[in-house]
Amino acid sequence: MVKKKALIIIDVQKAFDDKKWGERNNLNAEDNISKILKLWREKEWLVIHIQHTSDNPSSVFYPKNEGFAIKEIVEPVDAEVIITKKVNSSFIGTNLEGSLRGNEITTVVITGLTTPHCVSTTTRMSGNLGFDTYLISDATAAFGMKDQNDTFYDAETIHNISLATLHNEFATILTTEQLINHFIK
Amino acid sequence: MVKKKALIIIDVQKAFDDKKWGERNNLNAEDNISKILKLWREKEWLVIHIQHTSDNPSSVFYPKNEGFAIKEIVEPVDAEVIITKKVNSSFIGTNLEGSLRGNEITTVVITGLTTPHCVSTTTRMSGNLGFDTYLISDATAAFGMKDQNDTFYDAETIHNISLATLHNEFATILTTEQLINHFIK
Repeated sequence: MVKKKALIIIDVQKAFDDKKWGERNNLNAEDNISKILKLWREKEWLVIHIQHTSDNPSSVFYPKNEGFAIKEIVEPVDAEVIITKKVNSSFIGTNLEGSLRGNEITTVVITGLTTPHCVSTTTRMSGNLGFDTYLISDATAAFGMKDQNDTFYDAETIHNISLATLHNEFATILTTEQLINHFIK
Repeated sequence: MVKKKALIIIDVQKAFDDKKWGERNNLNAEDNISKILKLWREKEWLVIHIQHTSDNPSSVFYPKNEGFAIKEIVEPVDAEVIITKKVNSSFIGTNLEGSLRGNEITTVVITGLTTPHCVSTTTRMSGNLGFDTYLISDATAAFGMKDQNDTFYDAETIHNISLATLHNEFATILTTEQLINHFIK
């Protein structure tokens, strides 16, 4: 079976349920990722789970801490690939590019957490590395954050503008529904 | 002389004077880059000019078109390195990482155009590749842009939120004045 389309699910880990992150937008992200994952499994297309890890025992991403675990709703099954990473980009310090090229993947669909950091960075590199890249707007989510002058921007603003800066330059931005219609046709 | 600090000047090319980009924020960016460049030359630290190029004859970045030229105010001199790139990230399809490692650079200072695209992507990769990365807020600039739903965000908003998403996660954000004080002390 030809598996030209890869679904990448970034950092959907319990660590992001920690209160330290503050308010999140789009609480439906995990449900939407789960819908897309179901489609990918039915089609037997390639699924790659990205799991963030930290060497720091006090990090919520330290493997012995419960935050490291991937959330049950998108838990990997069987032979699905899991790639661990230590920085934001799923392509740095990992074999993600080799894994995609080895599987002759030309189309990459990106979902996961969080929009401005790991999702944006991975989407930028995917586009720049030449993959036909789709980012699913309602299958990702953001937290609010402060800038270098201590000005706070809420989660929805961070999410929306992160998507605007990626749109057309690095990826095609679709909703879950648009993606499913697009690939089922 | 030890040259551990590299200044990277991204895409300060005449192409960005084209009207097609719309209104830009921070028209002082080039002046600020020029001040930093002067300091780097005095210190004899490494300067790397990044120049965007396109294979498409109708592109403002096509080498035969006038937009390809680096603006006079930051024009390379003597043996300064010029690296051409074809995508947003200065690290993809180029020898930038090798050039930094070969010069034993550990600190990277990033300036140039534009904040949400080439500057953000290069800053993300610089930080994720392990370089101690500084991004100079008033030595970069943005244009307004529309998202996938045709909602327009003005240049200043795109600039500010692009910086917020990089702050502390990928880079230390400083003004030109802060940078000069920081490295002169």
